[in-house]
Amino acid sequence: MIEVGIVGGTGYTGAELLRILARHPGVKIQAITSRSEAGQPVAEMFPHLRGSLDLCFSEPDKAELGDCDLVFFATPNGTAMQSTPALLASGVRVIDLAADFRLKDPAVWERWYGMPHQCPALLEEAVYGLPELNREAIRDARLIANPGCYPTAVTLGFLPLVEAGAVDPSWLIADAKSGVSGAGRKATTGLLMAEVGESFKAYSVAGHRHAPEITQNLKHFAGVDVGLTFVPHLVPMIRGIEATLYGRLVDASLDIQGLYRDRYAGEVFVDLMPGGHPDTRSVRGANLCRIAVSQQGQDGVVVVQSVIDNLVKGAAGQAVQNMNLMFALPESAGLESIALLP
Amino acid sequence: MIEVGIVGGTGYTGAELLRILARHPGVKIQAITSRSEAGQPVAEMFPHLRGSLDLCFSEPDKAELGDCDLVFFATPNGTAMQSTPALLASGVRVIDLAADFRLKDPAVWERWYGMPHQCPALLEEAVYGLPELNREAIRDARLIANPGCYPTAVTLGFLPLVEAGAVDPSWLIADAKSGVSGAGRKATTGLLMAEVGESFKAYSVAGHRHAPEITQNLKHFAGVDVGLTFVPHLVPMIRGIEATLYGRLVDASLDIQGLYRDRYAGEVFVDLMPGGHPDTRSVRGANLCRIAVSQQGQDGVVVVQSVIDNLVKGAAGQAVQNMNLMFALPESAGLESIALLP
Amino acid sequence: MIEVGIVGGTGYTGAELLRILARHPGVKIQAITSRSEAGQPVAEMFPHLRGSLDLCFSEPDKAELGDCDLVFFATPNGTAMQSTPALLASGVRVIDLAADFRLKDPAVWERWYGMPHQCPALLEEAVYGLPELNREAIRDARLIANPGCYPTAVTLGFLPLVEAGAVDPSWLIADAKSGVSGAGRKATTGLLMAEVGESFKAYSVAGHRHAPEITQNLKHFAGVDVGLTFVPHLVPMIRGIEATLYGRLVDASLDIQGLYRDRYAGEVFVDLMPGGHPDTRSVRGANLCRIAVSQQGQDGVVVVQSVIDNLVKGAAGQAVQNMNLMFALPESAGLESIALLP
Amino acid sequence: MIEVGIVGGTGYTGAELLRILARHPGVKIQAITSRSEAGQPVAEMFPHLRGSLDLCFSEPDKAELGDCDLVFFATPNGTAMQSTPALLASGVRVIDLAADFRLKDPAVWERWYGMPHQCPALLEEAVYGLPELNREAIRDARLIANPGCYPTAVTLGFLPLVEAGAVDPSWLIADAKSGVSGAGRKATTGLLMAEVGESFKAYSVAGHRHAPEITQNLKHFAGVDVGLTFVPHLVPMIRGIEATLYGRLVDASLDIQGLYRDRYAGEVFVDLMPGGHPDTRSVRGANLCRIAVSQQGQDGVVVVQSVIDNLVKGAAGQAVQNMNLMFALPESAGLESIALLP
Repeated sequence: MIEVGIVGGTGYTGAELLRILARHPGVKIQAITSRSEAGQPVAEMFPHLRGSLDLCFSEPDKAELGDCDLVFFATPNGTAMQSTPALLASGVRVIDLAADFRLKDPAVWERWYGMPHQCPALLEEAVYGLPELNREAIRDARLIANPGCYPTAVTLGFLPLVEAGAVDPSWLIADAKSGVSGAGRKATTGLLMAEVGESFKAYSVAGHRHAPEITQNLKHFAGVDVGLTFVPHLVPMIRGIEATLYGRLVDASLDIQGLYRDRYAGEVFVDLMPGGHPDTRSVRGANLCRIAVSQQGQDGVVVVQSVIDNLVKGAAGQAVQNMNLMFALPESAGLESIALLP
Repeated sequence: MIEVGIVGGTGYTGAELLRILARHPGVKIQAITSRSEAGQPVAEMFPHLRGSLDLCFSEPDKAELGDCDLVFFATPNGTAMQSTPALLASGVRVIDLAADFRLKDPAVWERWYGMPHQCPALLEEAVYGLPELNREAIRDARLIANPGCYPTAVTLGFLPLVEAGAVDPSWLIADAKSGVSGAGRKATTGLLMAEVGESFKAYSVAGHRHAPEITQNLKHFAGVDVGLTFVPHLVPMIRGIEATLYGRLVDASLDIQGLYRDRYAGEVFVDLMPGGHPDTRSVRGANLCRIAVSQQGQDGVVVVQSVIDNLVKGAAGQAVQNMNLMFALPESAGLESIALLP
Repeated sequence: MIEVGIVGGTGYTGAELLRILARHPGVKIQAITSRSEAGQPVAEMFPHLRGSLDLCFSEPDKAELGDCDLVFFATPNGTAMQSTPALLASGVRVIDLAADFRLKDPAVWERWYGMPHQCPALLEEAVYGLPELNREAIRDARLIANPGCYPTAVTLGFLPLVEAGAVDPSWLIADAKSGVSGAGRKATTGLLMAEVGESFKAYSVAGHRHAPEITQNLKHFAGVDVGLTFVPHLVPMIRGIEATLYGRLVDASLDIQGLYRDRYAGEVFVDLMPGGHPDTRSVRGANLCRIAVSQQGQDGVVVVQSVIDNLVKGAAGQAVQNMNLMFALPESAGLESIALLP
Repeated sequence: MIEVGIVGGTGYTGAELLRILARHPGVKIQAITSRSEAGQPVAEMFPHLRGSLDLCFSEPDKAELGDCDLVFFATPNGTAMQSTPALLASGVRVIDLAADFRLKDPAVWERWYGMPHQCPALLEEAVYGLPELNREAIRDARLIANPGCYPTAVTLGFLPLVEAGAVDPSWLIADAKSGVSGAGRKATTGLLMAEVGESFKAYSVAGHRHAPEITQNLKHFAGVDVGLTFVPHLVPMIRGIEATLYGRLVDASLDIQGLYRDRYAGEVFVDLMPGGHPDTRSVRGANLCRIAVSQQGQDGVVVVQSVIDNLVKGAAGQAVQNMNLMFALPESAGLESIALLP
């Protein structure tokens, strides 16, 4: 059994990690830390875990994280980078579900996250944990930067086109929509049901932190600079991301469906749905990215729809997929749940 | 492996049964019938099953249901009673998720369901499939009447009080609220999102079919007549039932918490939450009834809150729980999923 | 033109008051105060008011409230009682939309609101602003205690029965359900869309502040003590309250429909819907209480459904109705809007 | 008083027209027709109209539409074109809220609407009823083609850019999102709350009827061909459209804000919100298009957000705005309602 610790178990990402790990056949949860909730049973905060998880939150300092095989950070940005160097030094492997290790360039990181990075030297070592891109590197990694939710949906959606050089990389458009759980479990007026229910809007139109992460991914695999316009929107639902992606084909005769089929052959957690309209509910609770690619007429514009559950393939499920790879378990261990529909 | 057939797999109850059975370790799904969809892949209608269930709907007549160990009916009321006698005669066991065998008295059945019963002789044999009441009888049953969703929540909520004679049985009130999936997957104006979203209302105030089912349950266990006022309401959400139950205690000194604790000791699928306010999301997707019981002041009124997922403990999950008992599998086989929250 | 001031314009009740008053033909809004937002345009916080209301929030101390004809308090409980005596002394009339003046007994008030009352002497003078009960007293009042949202729905629903002595007053049950705007515009985790969306639950089962207010109303008009069990629930929608009320008839031969028809004859803001199932959306945005009363069988239990928009007839609309009475305007001035459906 | 008739009053567009006209100071509703509901009180189908509209649906043949000053068609596509020629011949003016007269080219119309046009000769005469484009022509029109909901939001959003030649017209992208009322009040499985609630998806990615309408608008005002990719999405809410529009600026030094400000100066029903993120709720129930225009960085891509209520500025409100112009009433008569928020 892999012995794992979870730092920061009071947000939605942490709760989802607990839901998955509590049923994972190869894992023993040793500690869940929360400074504010230390001593409280986890199931008191998250009643759906009653009967399935018999643990209390513990003080971060007292949890014996150094004895774990793996520590997950489900913390706000800027937390994991404080303790990761020491954990790695103790031989503990780390998966950070926040953004601390996602960007390679510390200057870019500091600009978007508004604080100095505490261990920029680790940025190079950290492996970006999108298995469909980086499977082999993940197996051997000590430190995984678990991707953001939008970057997962957008990168997987654009990847076959960009890798193949099939679209003009200088004008890519990603119009992305997310359920409200993507904003976390923070007491803010702007996320009250009376504020966001029955309404729809764009946000961060001037620029969003996930844009440089997506750009970094695409650039890495395209081998050239990419120009991306990324606009996120808030959907009056709880879980799910849909990204509609637009690119201009450089060669109208290309077999786009074949491109996607080949690229994702053998991928258990990517499902192509040719000609379809994937809806977010079809992946709710499941570790899956469902993609459809199509064209409208003959104008050379390709349209990609990509859906994930932001808390699963966009966060906790992907983290477990990475863990499975790191510890040589079957990649889908603990991730077999079928989406909950309706 | 138990070989099962499903008649009527195009509604929400059928889809939920498929979701659970596709991951059940002891079951092989032999056939799913639908006259209207025969020949179509099931996963085309229910995209969440893509990759998990590789079956097509088949013609009811051609499906070799007689070779199955067990047939589930997830059909409209009045269908199961047509074919059940022949299946039983072939040695096939039957679980009906509709109402055909829920009421013992054919006259009462006909009054509420508006058609003559086709096999009233089976009503006596049919076992009411609420394991917390009827576990032993279920093990040996050939024919299970799977309870209605409201009756599951209300019966489990009232049961300890009524069995113990703790409340005046002549005036019980059940104010019950259900998400819209309880009304099924029927194309009717009244269930459009633009009609039922962002609104709340009572319905069937003059009388609802589930009232005689609840009354029959309570009367059976109380040993006396009961007077029940049952008012169902429609909640703008998809899954979940909450029932708030009111009764007048006959003895104010009674240890009500102890009564519930004793009655449900050892029950895996009933969770007591003393002093709490169980919410429907805490059981979403899980085969669980979560109950809290309390009093407001000293006025002798007891208030019970009982929540279930109408499609799981209120339908498909309960059916699988019954199947597990009938075939001597662990009662929770295939039913270990933790609720999806948020 | 009546010159009005609004203290506390940043909550939902205040915003709704602004929406109504901005189109009221007989009112001029002189000032809207908010300590935290002073200097900010109101329409920046509430974009639906852009173009309709060209005012900034002002400091409470600097707003010339003493020059107004009327001041509305749309503040948290405990605020209005600080300034009301001075305003009354300056000849300004006051409508408090919070709870400061709703209960006649200061000891009861202090028990439920957890603070000492600052001007208990005014409790007797304050007129409870439910026009269907108190129309004449309201006309002449200096100080109006605008009713709570639940008390409005429950009192109007029970009133004809209780006034007529038609039900046993010792066991009344009010099972009430509210949309989330009823909890106000406070940054609390428990009201996030990811917490309350797609879920349903009871709350405050041990006792809610609105219970003594309802009891006080019913007792006053019944002339005898009443026993009330009141359980509020949270509905995953924004606006609306539905209350389902249960009582035991003392005389089964009573013409209940006639009782309601007679009691509410001539009431513009109460609509009886015999045999119907009023839904909350049918009053969304409208100053209206829609009621249906019925019986299930012959068991002597009467069931009342009562719906309002908690922000309109349950708060701001009712306040304007009171204002119209106080200033001898047509009672429905500014309140003619038809509900927004769907 | 203008005497109006409404053909087809049982859908959401018809109901919204009734809500607005019932409070319009210059209108008398003479008849509302519905073959299926003839004889039924309108307020029985639409309870929010109880007390505000005392009319029954009438047989289309018996309604004296020829005596009206104006007839609105709130019917499915293909209905208005059957009776419009005769009405015009009787001197009755017509506003069609469906698509019958929106496209100038009958061949294009027939391709998208799947039926031959019955009166192609009227296509040229019909005036496209978007007052911000066509105000003068609308005043004198006998026949108004009321715009589609998506075309209203997208056209108003793109118009200043396209008219000014500020963007490359060959690659315009409109990623549009609509609440479910846009699909009408039809009994179809795909619009059930249990199907579309808590989920998000694109639809009609291969091509949608509103694309040629938008293209026709933009081309007309741009004076050159335009290339448009239009992808509609379904949002789990009832009312509202948000369109996020992308274009490539031909001159990066352009004052985009000034362009919009100048174009919409004096327009009562267009509100610019520089730097903001307009949400659909801020126009719910109001006849308003709220627009924000911005850029992300210096890459020459302009992003426009445009929101409307699909049933008001996208349908019934716009029809009344057109009526006001046609009959020389103040343009905002009956359209002063402030949006309902929250």
